[in-house]
Amino acid sequence: MFSITVRDHMMVAHSFRGEVFGPAQRLHGATFLVDATFRRPELDTDGIVVDMGLATRELGAVLGEFAYRNLDEEPAFAGVNTSTEFLAKTIADRLADRVRAGTLGEGAHGLTGITVTLHESHVAWASYERAL
Amino acid sequence: MFSITVRDHMMVAHSFRGEVFGPAQRLHGATFLVDATFRRPELDTDGIVVDMGLATRELGAVLGEFAYRNLDEEPAFAGVNTSTEFLAKTIADRLADRVRAGTLGEGAHGLTGITVTLHESHVAWASYERAL
Amino acid sequence: MFSITVRDHMMVAHSFRGEVFGPAQRLHGATFLVDATFRRPELDTDGIVVDMGLATRELGAVLGEFAYRNLDEEPAFAGVNTSTEFLAKTIADRLADRVRAGTLGEGAHGLTGITVTLHESHVAWASYERAL
Amino acid sequence: MFSITVRDHMMVAHSFRGEVFGPAQRLHGATFLVDATFRRPELDTDGIVVDMGLATRELGAVLGEFAYRNLDEEPAFAGVNTSTEFLAKTIADRLADRVRAGTLGEGAHGLTGITVTLHESHVAWASYERAL
Amino acid sequence: MFSITVRDHMMVAHSFRGEVFGPAQRLHGATFLVDATFRRPELDTDGIVVDMGLATRELGAVLGEFAYRNLDEEPAFAGVNTSTEFLAKTIADRLADRVRAGTLGEGAHGLTGITVTLHESHVAWASYERAL
Amino acid sequence: MFSITVRDHMMVAHSFRGEVFGPAQRLHGATFLVDATFRRPELDTDGIVVDMGLATRELGAVLGEFAYRNLDEEPAFAGVNTSTEFLAKTIADRLADRVRAGTLGEGAHGLTGITVTLHESHVAWASYERAL
Repeated sequence: MFSITVRDHMMVAHSFRGEVFGPAQRLHGATFLVDATFRRPELDTDGIVVDMGLATRELGAVLGEFAYRNLDEEPAFAGVNTSTEFLAKTIADRLADRVRAGTLGEGAHGLTGITVTLHESHVAWASYERAL
Repeated sequence: MFSITVRDHMMVAHSFRGEVFGPAQRLHGATFLVDATFRRPELDTDGIVVDMGLATRELGAVLGEFAYRNLDEEPAFAGVNTSTEFLAKTIADRLADRVRAGTLGEGAHGLTGITVTLHESHVAWASYERAL
Repeated sequence: MFSITVRDHMMVAHSFRGEVFGPAQRLHGATFLVDATFRRPELDTDGIVVDMGLATRELGAVLGEFAYRNLDEEPAFAGVNTSTEFLAKTIADRLADRVRAGTLGEGAHGLTGITVTLHESHVAWASYERAL
Repeated sequence: MFSITVRDHMMVAHSFRGEVFGPAQRLHGATFLVDATFRRPELDTDGIVVDMGLATRELGAVLGEFAYRNLDEEPAFAGVNTSTEFLAKTIADRLADRVRAGTLGEGAHGLTGITVTLHESHVAWASYERAL
Repeated sequence: MFSITVRDHMMVAHSFRGEVFGPAQRLHGATFLVDATFRRPELDTDGIVVDMGLATRELGAVLGEFAYRNLDEEPAFAGVNTSTEFLAKTIADRLADRVRAGTLGEGAHGLTGITVTLHESHVAWASYERAL
Repeated sequence: MFSITVRDHMMVAHSFRGEVFGPAQRLHGATFLVDATFRRPELDTDGIVVDMGLATRELGAVLGEFAYRNLDEEPAFAGVNTSTEFLAKTIADRLADRVRAGTLGEGAHGLTGITVTLHESHVAWASYERAL
């Protein structure tokens, strides 16, 4: 199995509901380093998994929907905790939509899976892995 | 599949028996950066894999059983090489015991797997992955 | 010249005023990795710069005054941009106060300088260096 | 499942053919950080996955076949794009050959899989995973 | 003293002349992670060292003059070894030219120094520090 | 001012005397990542600070005097605490001796300073800086 990963980041504000979150129930924020991994069993005719330039551009486009925002005020996230693991899934799903829409190039139709990892600090991160 | 990972470290002394270990047969030591990953297919009702605060606390408790010790003198490790890969398994198993004992919270009963990675330097690390 | 550095982090929300900040004028957030460096020309009688345990504890106490907060609502920061470089100075000054107050131990009176570096992402950081 | 990973690097020149590569069609170069992971379900009689010293030596030997070279001039790569993902597979296959040839020691015959990851920068990497 | 640092990277081919360089006399390549640090004793009226967005844009522009090129064929470098330390100075000098030309904004005229660090691998880097 | 830095590591056991060290008074160990920085105001006739290959070899030779040892049993360290900052100075001084002895090459006589940084974990490190 082959994969490539590209990294970008986003800086957001949010808060959590639930006693389990302790002080993180207050409005705070995070820099999320975001690693998007694309998988496929065989390389395409150019000898690559997917165009790294397009993968980087599309990851940046997805993160641009979050960047420099207060996630508590985003209608898409009303009533949910925008936990690191939830955001990993949301970003993976939006990347999957873009793969299907063709914005990562024709070759990207050979992709079989995506994993997104969000690092919230040097000591904590979360991942979501899905098929395509 | 979702996962979260928390990182901590421990500083220990030990030695190895067997020619394969070369100079590491002498008493020496290591700082192990320890990454504990917890997996589950669906998030819990709070929208998380497991409480990161509890995961961090319980990893710290497990590492406290090793920290600032000479592993050659620990009865639990008599007659075994405390290799990086062996320690990864030991820590994973002890974390699994704590998940079952409920110290990572009720939500942790939905966890299906644990991976522990120990970095012994910037150029060498070992992992152990198990089901729950 | 000797130095020791300890690292911790904090997660905060804030916004900036001024066109130069572009989208960061909106309420957003950051994880700041914070490196606090303590300097002195000679080691103390224990052979150290300062007790790393106390340095870590005091850095954690200073960061606890920021952690999981919206800095826009902190009276101490009314009317100022809590830029990464401004926060580096604020943390360095608060650590200097603690050195003088003796909470880093008696040996800490031999310290001659502090540098604080805040990493706001994997591609941007800021520092403030001062004498003691 | 157990694994160990060792890291080394190589510095090479190359160019790509295909419009998808944009400016990377020009002769340029890369430092590849190379992580070689070896897997097996049970530890050997020394309590390890494979001798880390031998794994490091053999990875170094494989990378020595690339290091400080212009890959465009290597007969082995005539007519192919030496993409990061292609090089990951090439290195994994050459390591697998060495495992079978016995140069990683007798214990290495218990290995069941290899993964090679090449980091081409701090924001992009590629992997290839195979069975043994 | 305050500073901010921004990071980017470039991928180039080159070779060296001189026996001291051993196998690096052959045409090879490198990914250079480039950290550009800007210093000043006091913050500007926005409470910053320099606009991080402009600093990132200008660093990218300077690196664009090198990226995906064979430095052996660049007229600007005829007859010199494009060592990591030489490139650090070249990039620092070009950034200094841009500060003076005003492309980092009016506030940048308060800068008093620049340091550029190039990481050629995870185990080797070089820096050049200069006044403005 | 120019500098180059090379990184290596060593794994040692030791213990400390003094209540300030708490549990580290017990025999334990550490992996030290060691960064050796060499400085000079002008490059040599090859366009470099010092031969990186020789710098790496000599750093490795110095670390070989510590590697896989219990520092409590080294006569050279009898009666002293082998703290991270003390070890940074010891390694810097031994590198300085080697510079003067000519083992880093003739060009190394132009070096004017050395800094050695020892990382004892991902959250703590120490440095010693000296002139040559």
